[in-house]
Amino acid sequence: MKITAVEAIPYAIPYAKPLKFASGEVRVAEHVLVRVHTDDGVVGIADAPPRPFTYGETQAGVVAVIDSLFAPAVVGLGLMEREQIHARLNRTVANPVAKAALDMAVWDALGRTLGYQVNELLGGWSDRMRVSHMLGFDSPAAMVAEAERMRDTHGITTFKVKVGRHPHTLDTAVVRALREGLGEEVELYVDGNRGWSASESARAMREMSDLGLTFAEELCPADDVLGRRWLVQQLDVPFIADESVPTPADVTREVLGGSATAVSIKTSRTGFTQSRRVHHLAEGLGLEVVMGNQIDSQLGSVCTVSFGAAFELTSRRAGELSNFLDMSDDLLTEPLEIRDGELTIRPGAGLGVEIDPDKLAHYRQD
Amino acid sequence: MKITAVEAIPYAIPYAKPLKFASGEVRVAEHVLVRVHTDDGVVGIADAPPRPFTYGETQAGVVAVIDSLFAPAVVGLGLMEREQIHARLNRTVANPVAKAALDMAVWDALGRTLGYQVNELLGGWSDRMRVSHMLGFDSPAAMVAEAERMRDTHGITTFKVKVGRHPHTLDTAVVRALREGLGEEVELYVDGNRGWSASESARAMREMSDLGLTFAEELCPADDVLGRRWLVQQLDVPFIADESVPTPADVTREVLGGSATAVSIKTSRTGFTQSRRVHHLAEGLGLEVVMGNQIDSQLGSVCTVSFGAAFELTSRRAGELSNFLDMSDDLLTEPLEIRDGELTIRPGAGLGVEIDPDKLAHYRQD
Repeated sequence: MKITAVEAIPYAIPYAKPLKFASGEVRVAEHVLVRVHTDDGVVGIADAPPRPFTYGETQAGVVAVIDSLFAPAVVGLGLMEREQIHARLNRTVANPVAKAALDMAVWDALGRTLGYQVNELLGGWSDRMRVSHMLGFDSPAAMVAEAERMRDTHGITTFKVKVGRHPHTLDTAVVRALREGLGEEVELYVDGNRGWSASESARAMREMSDLGLTFAEELCPADDVLGRRWLVQQLDVPFIADESVPTPADVTREVLGGSATAVSIKTSRTGFTQSRRVHHLAEGLGLEVVMGNQIDSQLGSVCTVSFGAAFELTSRRAGELSNFLDMSDDLLTEPLEIRDGELTIRPGAGLGVEIDPDKLAHYRQD
Repeated sequence: MKITAVEAIPYAIPYAKPLKFASGEVRVAEHVLVRVHTDDGVVGIADAPPRPFTYGETQAGVVAVIDSLFAPAVVGLGLMEREQIHARLNRTVANPVAKAALDMAVWDALGRTLGYQVNELLGGWSDRMRVSHMLGFDSPAAMVAEAERMRDTHGITTFKVKVGRHPHTLDTAVVRALREGLGEEVELYVDGNRGWSASESARAMREMSDLGLTFAEELCPADDVLGRRWLVQQLDVPFIADESVPTPADVTREVLGGSATAVSIKTSRTGFTQSRRVHHLAEGLGLEVVMGNQIDSQLGSVCTVSFGAAFELTSRRAGELSNFLDMSDDLLTEPLEIRDGELTIRPGAGLGVEIDPDKLAHYRQD
């Protein structure tokens, strides 16, 4: 049960369909596969998707911080000493994606060692989540066609629509076309990735007030403190804080400051140990929660569903679990499948998935 | 791993030294031993100490709610389905001590099944806590003698002093005598169990301002809402909410309402599953935390230290772990021992302790 080594393996897989949104664009998944080895010969895995435009991390930086700081800090600790691991990683500030992947690989190794799923170790509420699909910037017709394809192929009926373009009518036209094209039975919410100002956001939300949106997420920057508070106060749907709440303390600040009324939990950002802290904090504060997607690979999506399905609060809403569909390939031996709008956890121990060595050899960059 | 039966066994053990405090007095430990049986033949145990003056539960009531509602709700579930168990128990309101014991017995059974300590399953920060001893109402001389005995016999140097009597000078004289008798090296804090008004509390704290207190706990009732907020605002030490925060939502209300600035976590009240929720909430809000004692038996104290030692935040302060010293006997096969001011977790799986069948046969009341 002792950690003997940590590997950080950079790899790159192109997207078949690049995702465009207000804060950036992703054409190639330049991720880092993290592997934690123990003295029992167990190997735990997790994926680190660096997002420079959100957290400042790069692929090379994730490898460097794991190799030079995090691996030496945790080698020799037992898999049960997770609060020690958590504390040692947090001696270094920032680097959320690198810390999260290491934490999740430890949990995977723990599950494999004990012979139980990570989902069960975390809480075991359910073995599946409903899936929400994210629609990146495109024309109204193309985005409606994409949503219809997701509905018809995978049974997905919840869509998060990327907004935040100028003029805002580019986006409101898309949301209106989606509602008209897909009808009242689908659930729609919008994510601005901080692309609008507070007043643009207010105007756009007013113009979409007849479209039955469920949430609005990060429409304007959290650093526009008073503007965002002004916006959040007037909305009649929860305002989700996502990239503005990478830590529990940030949740407290944003929510008590009136700048958010719901929280997105991303395991790629807060791992399992810190995601549970965010979950219990949000639950205790009485907030709604959505399991978010950091444009995750299949391995990242498995982590999201393993955590989200472990608790009742995170299972209420569809989780953002489908971005991997846009990748041209993946590292897992058996691809994930979204059926009837749901993603189900694999039955095996830990995260229940394995890395294909040939694919890793093909895509690795070191 | 499936729960096949839940037993709730009432038992009574007299106190050698009754504990007196503002909200009540305890002469006999009229507790309920909870045992959770699984289809693997594993038995998990925990202790339910009913506190009618705090939560309204009685010994017979705890047995009744477990037998008639909680046991049927959880039998058939697996030990890994803890969030399901949590949700099913919470369909019934109140009854915190009954729910907590059942939850902790499930965790003990899980630890025994997997072959790991509950402390490790929870987080594994450390294997021990420093001990804080609670001093009940008596004369200054008697309370100083008791503190000296605890220091000299067990190495304890942190004392929680029960206050809340009228006139308040009965108590301030005790605290002054303790500081003078034991010197600057001991840590002292006070617990009013809601015995004073807000203005009495303010006056008493002013009169003790030179005594270097660490905390003040529940000096006046939480339902004296504005009075308590007025008091808390003027104190220069954290004001611990204890019996006023039996749930995470209560923590949020009391803290955001300005009626508390720290939180007591009692595993006898919130078990392990809900205590972790309170812990992560308090941590995310940036509050200090103390592991409290519900006048616990040895089994209850083992639960407190198993949880408290699992996390860094709960390990910063001494935990209230010594009330069992005042009982005339206990159910465990091997008595706990406080050495050099510390209580250490037993090495075995689960909670690491066993019930003595002869003692249980002797003290059980059904």
